[in-house]
Amino acid sequence: MKIAKTIESIRCLIKAARRAGKTIGFVPTMGALHTGHISLIEAAKENCDFVVVSIFVNPTQFGPKEDFKKYPRPLEADLKMCRKAGVDVVFPPTPHQMYPAENLTWVNVEKLSEPLCGKFRPGHFRGVATVCAKLFNIVLPDIAYFGQKDAQQAIIIKQMVADLNMPLKIVVCPTVREKNGPAMSSRNQYLTPQQKKDAAFIYKSLQKCRQMIKQGVRNTKKITAEMRKVLRRIPSAEIQYVSIVDAETIQNIDKVAGKVLVAVAVKIGLIRLIDNIIIDTGK
Amino acid sequence: MKIAKTIESIRCLIKAARRAGKTIGFVPTMGALHTGHISLIEAAKENCDFVVVSIFVNPTQFGPKEDFKKYPRPLEADLKMCRKAGVDVVFPPTPHQMYPAENLTWVNVEKLSEPLCGKFRPGHFRGVATVCAKLFNIVLPDIAYFGQKDAQQAIIIKQMVADLNMPLKIVVCPTVREKNGPAMSSRNQYLTPQQKKDAAFIYKSLQKCRQMIKQGVRNTKKITAEMRKVLRRIPSAEIQYVSIVDAETIQNIDKVAGKVLVAVAVKIGLIRLIDNIIIDTGK
Repeated sequence: MKIAKTIESIRCLIKAARRAGKTIGFVPTMGALHTGHISLIEAAKENCDFVVVSIFVNPTQFGPKEDFKKYPRPLEADLKMCRKAGVDVVFPPTPHQMYPAENLTWVNVEKLSEPLCGKFRPGHFRGVATVCAKLFNIVLPDIAYFGQKDAQQAIIIKQMVADLNMPLKIVVCPTVREKNGPAMSSRNQYLTPQQKKDAAFIYKSLQKCRQMIKQGVRNTKKITAEMRKVLRRIPSAEIQYVSIVDAETIQNIDKVAGKVLVAVAVKIGLIRLIDNIIIDTGK
Repeated sequence: MKIAKTIESIRCLIKAARRAGKTIGFVPTMGALHTGHISLIEAAKENCDFVVVSIFVNPTQFGPKEDFKKYPRPLEADLKMCRKAGVDVVFPPTPHQMYPAENLTWVNVEKLSEPLCGKFRPGHFRGVATVCAKLFNIVLPDIAYFGQKDAQQAIIIKQMVADLNMPLKIVVCPTVREKNGPAMSSRNQYLTPQQKKDAAFIYKSLQKCRQMIKQGVRNTKKITAEMRKVLRRIPSAEIQYVSIVDAETIQNIDKVAGKVLVAVAVKIGLIRLIDNIIIDTGK
């Protein structure tokens, strides 16, 4: 496994892989890798000849009061996991390499960036879209892999790729969960053992929704009210949103119909956790 | 010369050229080609193996009260000029091909898009940056060519390419002028013979500036006042701006120093004309 420490060196390795006729799979990450990331790498390994993983805690997607500084950066452990997973190149640039001067150019995906997490993290998705555009232009992959856990991010990146005619395909892989339900997240490690147990109610609230829809309930207010009841069983939980939205436009809906995204954001203590499921009612 | 009428067909031709080891030069235009465009094609021919010209009157860079609908579209004449100039492929997409659905993703280059023309054409440079990002992603050129006549556009596109790590080089070619001075522009054809004569005062105002700087004048207010006097000799001219700015940041300056951009926008009747020169005072 190679470690490309500069933009020039990753470009050089990519060029060589291209010249050798290889297809390039790309998994952009912020590091602190877990089984969820590994599932993305495995998907890339399955479909591409040459797999690149970037590890970059992107400053422009964190708000001024968010956890940019204390976000975990266990580079050695990450490299070990990448090596074990059969990654070809890891690209762990420094903030200075990615933003050598004041960044003036921003990619913004309107409408899709505003609801759900966008409401609680202003500027977050502008930072995500911009850094993904940059990374795509550096790595020039055939396919880039994202996790369903960050549902809104995946929808925004897909829209950006389509709107800007970017020459790559986005593949979204299923959320990988802890044994007791919670979606894998680099932020889970901040939780106390009790909070980890409590976090199970997040996925339970989503299952509650699935169950109600199965039983024929279609009124989204009725469903989210029941979901909130489940979430309130977490002591000290601050519910940011409990939303049932159209799975493509992520706009609010009154009645469940077609493919819907059920998404939840909850703060347990200082730790913000998100989770979601997609339910296809087939109409 | 080939004419690629769809995104799929241009991608296919580009892929074949790449496979043949050719370097790709790209000249994005809005058509109504003139000698200025041809000079860009010639520069591309000189440095690249395979030259692509796009012809697309981009709706998203026109304001609601601007001349999108009546902008000239002499496609047959344009194709003839491209053929004569030795272009390999012309790409003249329809608006529907470029914007098949509502476009949600916008590329915005902050600060550089706001002064000069940006003040009079809100949203213009956002549309320009976005369509250039799209075209670059479709054509994937090694080098793209722009004219110095649209100085602010060239600065913005260069910044976008640098900020987003786009894998291409931007080359800016000198302004080509009519015999009596005015910069070549597709909009010149709207002018009456008298207005064409009057338009000469635009370049004369720039020459006035060059002369004053040569004589040692450094106070920008003093210089622009004299330039305005020259421009006022055009009957019915509406001066939009007469600016001396830093050639890189395009921010206003009080004293001429280093490399400066001297830029003018004037409406003669309904026709908006722009022109500029760069003066390097060497400090």
